[in-house]
Amino acid sequence: MPQIVEHSRHRMNSRPIRIIEVGPRDGLQNEPGVIPTERKIAFVNALSRTGVMEIEAGAFVSPKAVPQLADSDEVFRKIERMPDVIYSALVPNERGLERARTVAAQKIAVFTAASETFTHRNIHATMRESITRFTPVVAGAKRDGMAVRGYISTVVFCPYEGRIVPAQVVEVMKRLLDLGVDEISLGDTIGKASPSDIRTLLDILLPHIPRERVSLHCHDTYGMAIANALTAWWDYGIETFDSSAGGLGGCPYAPGASGNVATEDLVFALKASGATIPVDETKVIAACRQISGDLGRPIASRLSQVERSPSAPQV
Amino acid sequence: MPQIVEHSRHRMNSRPIRIIEVGPRDGLQNEPGVIPTERKIAFVNALSRTGVMEIEAGAFVSPKAVPQLADSDEVFRKIERMPDVIYSALVPNERGLERARTVAAQKIAVFTAASETFTHRNIHATMRESITRFTPVVAGAKRDGMAVRGYISTVVFCPYEGRIVPAQVVEVMKRLLDLGVDEISLGDTIGKASPSDIRTLLDILLPHIPRERVSLHCHDTYGMAIANALTAWWDYGIETFDSSAGGLGGCPYAPGASGNVATEDLVFALKASGATIPVDETKVIAACRQISGDLGRPIASRLSQVERSPSAPQV
Repeated sequence: MPQIVEHSRHRMNSRPIRIIEVGPRDGLQNEPGVIPTERKIAFVNALSRTGVMEIEAGAFVSPKAVPQLADSDEVFRKIERMPDVIYSALVPNERGLERARTVAAQKIAVFTAASETFTHRNIHATMRESITRFTPVVAGAKRDGMAVRGYISTVVFCPYEGRIVPAQVVEVMKRLLDLGVDEISLGDTIGKASPSDIRTLLDILLPHIPRERVSLHCHDTYGMAIANALTAWWDYGIETFDSSAGGLGGCPYAPGASGNVATEDLVFALKASGATIPVDETKVIAACRQISGDLGRPIASRLSQVERSPSAPQV
Repeated sequence: MPQIVEHSRHRMNSRPIRIIEVGPRDGLQNEPGVIPTERKIAFVNALSRTGVMEIEAGAFVSPKAVPQLADSDEVFRKIERMPDVIYSALVPNERGLERARTVAAQKIAVFTAASETFTHRNIHATMRESITRFTPVVAGAKRDGMAVRGYISTVVFCPYEGRIVPAQVVEVMKRLLDLGVDEISLGDTIGKASPSDIRTLLDILLPHIPRERVSLHCHDTYGMAIANALTAWWDYGIETFDSSAGGLGGCPYAPGASGNVATEDLVFALKASGATIPVDETKVIAACRQISGDLGRPIASRLSQVERSPSAPQV
């Protein structure tokens, strides 16, 4: 049975999974409700004690463009930092970098996409311009000893252009790596990628980047996020995943539909599959419950729904 | 890259996927609302035109035990049968078989579990007794030229006993096959199985049964149903799946949590992964919408939520 041998390889050799918790930034940015600053700080503090490796705690973008995150400076100043957690922020330009530096963010994230139309509509630039724009940002961050992650959105499907050619993702990724970006987050922005698409993408990408520097950012819009993440881990040894506590963030293109994969569901599925992962999923749900009143809706993750049920058997 | 070769094998050789639509029986049986008979008939008729291979259209059980399906005789008599669709019914005993015969069901399903406690609580019998009980049912059905499927519940986890030893599933399966059961439906009843569990189970089971005679019955309670189904198809060539239109059925052990995997989500994921599958998922959603008023809740599948959104981009 060749499958067993093949499968065991990664499972046995695999190191602990790293979860990049993007709920406080990517999640809250795409929620209609604005969470009071004090509650946001408590949310990040609670997430800091769940076992996630990194928390994207805010964004230093225009408060007009993203009012939900206008208080990121205050959040960064007031959170209680845990020594084993990295606190990162999204930064679009040098002014944002200066704010990130002022509040001592350990890591910044820059963002572009593998689709010309998506980049244009999202950040009003061509893909090339978007990269030119954050060239000094990456250089500045590296000079100050901050790590840099590079988001690439729409790595499989673009909501405007449809299917994206993997070679285009490779090209964008190479440019980011050339600038000095430390890790690449591959975003299935509309959640339409299947495990087969993830295989095709990773087959083409991994010859150009060590798998340790790749994070997969899955959306669960079509219900394939868990399948995609497990495939990336099991078949390709990807060990870093972006996820959002409580599945915060919805899908900006489809109100009511789900967006970011929920951290607790991803952690549960990885653990159930035999992965070593130091995150306590019940603490993730508890962290979300603190802000669910402000969100105006119950937490939508599968795990929180099972947990909510009084008659759920303990197994 | 050995993975690519390995993966391609099943993908290239695979035949069309067969969907066993269990919404009208397994789904409605576990919904609190009772659907009027006429609407149920319209539901089955609409499902008959979606491309599913088989529809479990009712159950010939005690109307006291399952009032939701008390009208199964009438449903069977009044549905408009399509020539390429098999209409089956759940049958617990000889009286049930007689009813199935009277309305000309083409196939019956008998059910047991791989857990002693679950079998006891669910059908008030030991596993051995449950099989003894339906021995004459299977024999009678075969005599009349009816096909028989055998449900085995709790193949990975039992809500009472926890993890189930795969050897126990093999034992139950062998007894069913010895009786003349044509196909086995493996039920992950509480949805707690991971793709790794499915691999372990199929590694142990498939030497004892041709994969063509195995159907996987996934529940999405913990969000792993799609991952499990895709793993069974991609890595093991399983080509038959039970699913429920609209995810009807919830989870009887966890109100509010999801149960049966939604047909439309499963079909979408399989198609996205390159499977040949003659089901039109938009017709499945349309069939569900007919009864959502009676259910008292919106259809919960991922796909129906994306579809509902007016701003969802067409990609």
